Amino acid sequence: MEELNKVLQGITSVSIDIAHKTQAHIDNLIKPPASLGALEEIAVKIAAITGKVTNKLDKKCVVIFASDNGICEEGVSSIPVIVTAKQTINIAKRGIAAINVLSRQAQSDVFVVDLGVKADLPNDTIINRKIRWGTHNMLHQPAMTREEAVEAIEIGIRMAEKLAGAGYQVIGAGEKGIGNTSTSGAVIMSLTGLGADDVIGKGAGLTEENFVHKKKVLTSVLAERQPDPKDPLDVLSKLGGFDIAGIVGLFLGCAYYKIPAVIDGLITIAGALLASKLNPLTVQYMIPSHLSAEPGYIPAKKRLGITPYLMLDMRLGEGTGCPIAFYLIDCALAIGREMGICPEAF
Amino acid sequence: MEELNKVLQGITSVSIDIAHKTQAHIDNLIKPPASLGALEEIAVKIAAITGKVTNKLDKKCVVIFASDNGICEEGVSSIPVIVTAKQTINIAKRGIAAINVLSRQAQSDVFVVDLGVKADLPNDTIINRKIRWGTHNMLHQPAMTREEAVEAIEIGIRMAEKLAGAGYQVIGAGEKGIGNTSTSGAVIMSLTGLGADDVIGKGAGLTEENFVHKKKVLTSVLAERQPDPKDPLDVLSKLGGFDIAGIVGLFLGCAYYKIPAVIDGLITIAGALLASKLNPLTVQYMIPSHLSAEPGYIPAKKRLGITPYLMLDMRLGEGTGCPIAFYLIDCALAIGREMGICPEAF
Repeated sequence: MEELNKVLQGITSVSIDIAHKTQAHIDNLIKPPASLGALEEIAVKIAAITGKVTNKLDKKCVVIFASDNGICEEGVSSIPVIVTAKQTINIAKRGIAAINVLSRQAQSDVFVVDLGVKADLPNDTIINRKIRWGTHNMLHQPAMTREEAVEAIEIGIRMAEKLAGAGYQVIGAGEKGIGNTSTSGAVIMSLTGLGADDVIGKGAGLTEENFVHKKKVLTSVLAERQPDPKDPLDVLSKLGGFDIAGIVGLFLGCAYYKIPAVIDGLITIAGALLASKLNPLTVQYMIPSHLSAEPGYIPAKKRLGITPYLMLDMRLGEGTGCPIAFYLIDCALAIGREMGICPEAF
Repeated sequence: MEELNKVLQGITSVSIDIAHKTQAHIDNLIKPPASLGALEEIAVKIAAITGKVTNKLDKKCVVIFASDNGICEEGVSSIPVIVTAKQTINIAKRGIAAINVLSRQAQSDVFVVDLGVKADLPNDTIINRKIRWGTHNMLHQPAMTREEAVEAIEIGIRMAEKLAGAGYQVIGAGEKGIGNTSTSGAVIMSLTGLGADDVIGKGAGLTEENFVHKKKVLTSVLAERQPDPKDPLDVLSKLGGFDIAGIVGLFLGCAYYKIPAVIDGLITIAGALLASKLNPLTVQYMIPSHLSAEPGYIPAKKRLGITPYLMLDMRLGEGTGCPIAFYLIDCALAIGREMGICPEAF
């Protein structure tokens, strides 16, 4: 709790002064005002974070928190639990998953942290921070203790610290955990007060029947656990996965170390929303990527006040939206560095 | 007209068989079915064009057709006409425009074709195909003759031919021409039957008063010229700019030479819509990029049956959406080439 408190108290605002100076610089480039839309927004946001008007963020990575979820016992996922372990290995050792392919395109590194996969995993390419072999079944008891939630958050914070120390300049949040559209959906239901019909989606591809079942289960979970939406740690420990907790820590740590942090889809935005409840300044450090096909993404993004840039109808997870957003960031920053200035060019 | 007729009659369908084979390949990758959304769609579309299940399109370019528009006499733009010439030089000779910056990011080349800029331009880096110093004022007479429209289209076709011969594998459409949100808007109004309120936007940044004026002028233009929406050459010659005509030819040529062609914003989608009216098969070769902030983009994309991938609130033109879409294409094709296959990985 000490590390978490230090970070929560130590996060400061981005530089509004540099944001204004950067917008003034962009307004002076050879184009109609505001005509580059979101690219201008991204360039201003990054500048306000780094404290420099022009930027180049070459060292990039996605951090994937892998963990299993006890709620899978209730048949809420179309995919067997063992796939968390297998796909974690595919990502960390074999480099053949979508996140690997997209990260290579973006010249971004991938780090995999095991917070609770239900299997012994190789330690050479997977960072072993296993708290437990999966969370409890949140239909019957809290998914984790409050202490475990803090532990997982602090692991996420220390990942951000480590990556900041290694020179990473932009960090994406990713996850692997069968059942985590259920945990994320439950977190978003709790924090927004919305019901399952407005938040819960089919995840990796449930049948209509199992989709109805998933919504019933999660409605029961909320009724049974009675999480307090004003207490993010209560919501997280009762409904979350260790993966979501790690993501919360990553977003907090990125804000603390002043590194832009990219949101992927449903699970990472649930973590982002929790982080914003712990400290609202964290939102200043968050960059959205794509509009997830999972319905719960929309109320979460509204609460965060962010608008995603990519409409790709993606719902894969792993952090796959992040490396694509890295390219948009590269473009936005190149505009600020390389475009001509008005009085000289006209 | 001979060249245009040859191309219109010579365009053939993409390979539906390869599309099915590519989707089957993608369905076998280690991810839930359809979870990569638009990246899968792009990979299938490109495969159907090239006739190969896996692809790598390294040689890319954006072709910018530059031209002035007589309608500017009516005060429909916030920017002086001379900026067409100045910005054409900034793009072609100085490399300091947004399209240059974004093209360098995407490792894409830029070609600039002068079809009707109201100035003598340097011939070394600008391809001189000037038809006339700008179109006529379409409020008072047809913007160009039918013969000039065909001439400009055939220049676009020959650009596609030349680029196909030089090994270019994906081509983006761009433009530079003050007043061309007015010409494009008029074309879209005519082809869709919609009024100015549904189609016309503020372009580079009109005041509210001048915006109302622009809509009045374009409503009058449609009433005066009475273009026949069933005759795309009539619409183009009465309302179009030479830039739009060149874009029509580029899309036709790309379909003829089986090269994926990327749509940017309002002006290029007006050209794409005209091309689709001349030969509906051309749509199979078109890849959208971003959702333009200009309102006329939306009815045009609906008519084409395409959905853009980027929500960047951009309204700059020059082809700036294309190099960003090139990156999405790179990602989509890398997925098909590099991801693991299901039975091996699980």
